[in-house]
Amino acid sequence: MRSISLKAKSLDMETGRNIVVLHEQDAEELGHFVGDRVKLVAPKATLVAIANTTKRMVQRGEIGAFIEVTEALGLKPGDILSVTLVSRPRSVDFIKKKMAGQQLSTEEVNAIVDDIVARNLSSTEMTAFVVSECIRGMSTSEIVALTRRMVDSGDKLELGISPVLDVHSIGGVPGNKYSLVTVPIVAAAGLAVPKTSSRAITSAAGTADVMEVLANVTLGMDEIKRIVQKVGAVLAWGGAVKLAPADDIIIGVERTLGVDPRCQLLASVMSKKLAVGADRILIDIPTGPGAKVETTDQARSFAHDFMELGRRLDVQVEVAITYGGQPVGYAVGPALEAREALETLRGNGPGSLVEKATSLAGIMLELGGAASAGMGRQMAHEILNSGKANQKMCEIIEAQGGNPDVKPEDIPIGDKKEVILALHDGYVTHIDNGSINKIARATGAPRGKGAGLRVILKEGRKISKGEPLLEIYAEHEAKLDDALAIAKRSPPITIGGMLLEKMTHRPHMG
Amino acid sequence: MRSISLKAKSLDMETGRNIVVLHEQDAEELGHFVGDRVKLVAPKATLVAIANTTKRMVQRGEIGAFIEVTEALGLKPGDILSVTLVSRPRSVDFIKKKMAGQQLSTEEVNAIVDDIVARNLSSTEMTAFVVSECIRGMSTSEIVALTRRMVDSGDKLELGISPVLDVHSIGGVPGNKYSLVTVPIVAAAGLAVPKTSSRAITSAAGTADVMEVLANVTLGMDEIKRIVQKVGAVLAWGGAVKLAPADDIIIGVERTLGVDPRCQLLASVMSKKLAVGADRILIDIPTGPGAKVETTDQARSFAHDFMELGRRLDVQVEVAITYGGQPVGYAVGPALEAREALETLRGNGPGSLVEKATSLAGIMLELGGAASAGMGRQMAHEILNSGKANQKMCEIIEAQGGNPDVKPEDIPIGDKKEVILALHDGYVTHIDNGSINKIARATGAPRGKGAGLRVILKEGRKISKGEPLLEIYAEHEAKLDDALAIAKRSPPITIGGMLLEKMTHRPHMG
Repeated sequence: MRSISLKAKSLDMETGRNIVVLHEQDAEELGHFVGDRVKLVAPKATLVAIANTTKRMVQRGEIGAFIEVTEALGLKPGDILSVTLVSRPRSVDFIKKKMAGQQLSTEEVNAIVDDIVARNLSSTEMTAFVVSECIRGMSTSEIVALTRRMVDSGDKLELGISPVLDVHSIGGVPGNKYSLVTVPIVAAAGLAVPKTSSRAITSAAGTADVMEVLANVTLGMDEIKRIVQKVGAVLAWGGAVKLAPADDIIIGVERTLGVDPRCQLLASVMSKKLAVGADRILIDIPTGPGAKVETTDQARSFAHDFMELGRRLDVQVEVAITYGGQPVGYAVGPALEAREALETLRGNGPGSLVEKATSLAGIMLELGGAASAGMGRQMAHEILNSGKANQKMCEIIEAQGGNPDVKPEDIPIGDKKEVILALHDGYVTHIDNGSINKIARATGAPRGKGAGLRVILKEGRKISKGEPLLEIYAEHEAKLDDALAIAKRSPPITIGGMLLEKMTHRPHMG
Repeated sequence: MRSISLKAKSLDMETGRNIVVLHEQDAEELGHFVGDRVKLVAPKATLVAIANTTKRMVQRGEIGAFIEVTEALGLKPGDILSVTLVSRPRSVDFIKKKMAGQQLSTEEVNAIVDDIVARNLSSTEMTAFVVSECIRGMSTSEIVALTRRMVDSGDKLELGISPVLDVHSIGGVPGNKYSLVTVPIVAAAGLAVPKTSSRAITSAAGTADVMEVLANVTLGMDEIKRIVQKVGAVLAWGGAVKLAPADDIIIGVERTLGVDPRCQLLASVMSKKLAVGADRILIDIPTGPGAKVETTDQARSFAHDFMELGRRLDVQVEVAITYGGQPVGYAVGPALEAREALETLRGNGPGSLVEKATSLAGIMLELGGAASAGMGRQMAHEILNSGKANQKMCEIIEAQGGNPDVKPEDIPIGDKKEVILALHDGYVTHIDNGSINKIARATGAPRGKGAGLRVILKEGRKISKGEPLLEIYAEHEAKLDDALAIAKRSPPITIGGMLLEKMTHRPHMG
């Protein structure tokens, strides 16, 4: 193959991939067309990059290198690169094979994951993979291969012990702060729980956002290991460590497109858990109107897939189908949720949160062998009521550099507040997750730690005209106004008579 | 919705779309996440753009505008833009509907085409559309809607007459220069043929590349109209006019991915023909090993789709299934093909080219009503043999600014030449289209007009050791070497005994 020499020009722009730009005529000279790869030989390093063409960004004889390529090659202005056309990576053929509906072998899945991590695939190729996953789905074998390779593509936590417990909620419910209660309960029983979690993306608070109110969550792998070895558990932000980075890149594409193929979700959850060495995993599937999974049938089918995947990956997986039709507890937003979690650990928690946190902890205690079959939930309640879970949470907070003596009421919340009142008497017949989420986002959460909202009454409760329904908190007046405007447009709470439907029986005439 | 004010910073880069870049923190302030759209209100204009986020390309308070946005808004350095989050265009929902396997309405298809032309879709969204087309396919109604809207999205040639003839080959065969013979034959019979064609993308010469050796092919719509009105036909480069521009954008995505969904191909071909006002259309489907369509069954199914589509679009479509298993004629490459076409018009053409050109012309003469049923081919032969087609070609060349008196031997071809000889006696049993194409590309064609190759003997011909098999022409020694290296690696021509297979009948014993 012919090669040409081009002068490097650094382009101060991130692309998330290894991309260079050639002048159209140089590209033609090389025999290039869009989406092709070029091998770049620089004075100090060599790299394969995706080549795009331009008429004006670079001149003939120049090659434009975006930040990733400039850094990988250690380019200096004026460096001369030898540029050769190379063929597409084989993984592109495998993506097209999946597109055609064929089953991929483990080696083929591995090649795709490896090229994703090496930033060798264009956004077009990555999208083709994600769309094919959505339409064609993946067999369990393919998901197993995908999970394993994604784990291997990143950092791993090696505690050298078993059991290692973990819990993951597939999300979609506002106020889902249960892990700040569940994890200390399980750790208080002597089990290891290296819990990593994400920040909110489209919701008002992820577990990492809530925990960050109480302690540092941006922890390196060494710190996580040290903390788990010392106090038995951690509540860290997964984004600070490179757990299954291929997954994060794929999720980026999914988010742009607004899709969430089940096969990728399965592989994503399992890979994050395997990367921290968990071998006893509890999956929480919040189910109900407005949650990610809306019906029990869907939840059961999901649960089956998770358990089958666990079996194939040699880890023990249990699944809890929990009610996700309205917020868990009352508080939504980082500081408000942190307050509620601490209150719960101190024995003053709302019923739905205590219920969820202890149910999940109970399953984990049994999974980890700390409780005998059927006794987990009772043990979880005892640990919570005895104050041991609260004590454990103090240890975790301290180990993560927070104030172990923090009291719920010490946590600052937004000083701009508005209360929404009931317009008429009746019963709370519906709380809309989507609307609650939008309002809470508008208050400025999760970035505004003190922003968020508190639901006053849950579904089924009686309310009189003029009584408070919802408290909204913000750190800035403008955000409070935004949130109120949304609450007006899409009411989060419906009040109606208890008689939801009236059916009259009409006798048959014939 | 909140809006924020940001200072415009022009980014000197083309993206082919309306894209801006916000600082991560401003984006968060706005409530933005990847793939969202923002409405930009500038001092002089308003635009919706796709917003990406960055940590370093722009600072807080700035908004980076790529070339397309800078130009569309007429931005000056320091202009302040008011930026508001807006929702994704509805067309993204329709793309996801197609992804889910549902049928799209005409309005939904229209919305997608409109947003493609308006550059409102991200490359991720465009890819999702193309991949969904590949996997899910499209119904005839959807293809009809797609074709119509693509035509409406661009410029149109309005001749105000009928019939208007056109011919299109779906390609894949090296040396396919037939239209330089077919078009003059048909035009010599008094029929209008506004033939636009493409330049080579992955082949060694497109019709536009070959015609460009003889005349100017970069013609505006007015020139095309004037020429057709004057001499009855044109052989122009389609890329110089905006015929169905949505199609060109979609084809760009297909090329990056190396896919060619049939529904898009059908809409693509028909839209280009309808845009020049053709109402009698001949589609040529070259069929054979190494062509785009490999079997007659596939070709027939394709032909059926084209005719059905024509019926629904109210234009008359005929389909010719031609032999595409080896090159048409002997020459491959712009100048070599132009020579061969002129020789054919002067009565000295190779059998396969004469055959193909007159067969297709015959069908067109009948389609256009110039010949009665069954008499078209004979009439085409007569026009060719009489010299009238050659005379018409001279008029076309002159009208397009070329030298009407050009003789085949006047056309310069590459002066670097190498002849490949037969290594042993035998018959030419196979000519490999793919390999012929690769070698011809390596010589420097189509950019190097004089580069290319000539096959000496076609399939079935006898050859002796040491006789010439293939002539390779280039304008530069290095390119000649490249081409020879490829010919060595993937031999374009196979010589074998005539006995291809020997079967022995063994009597049944039981």
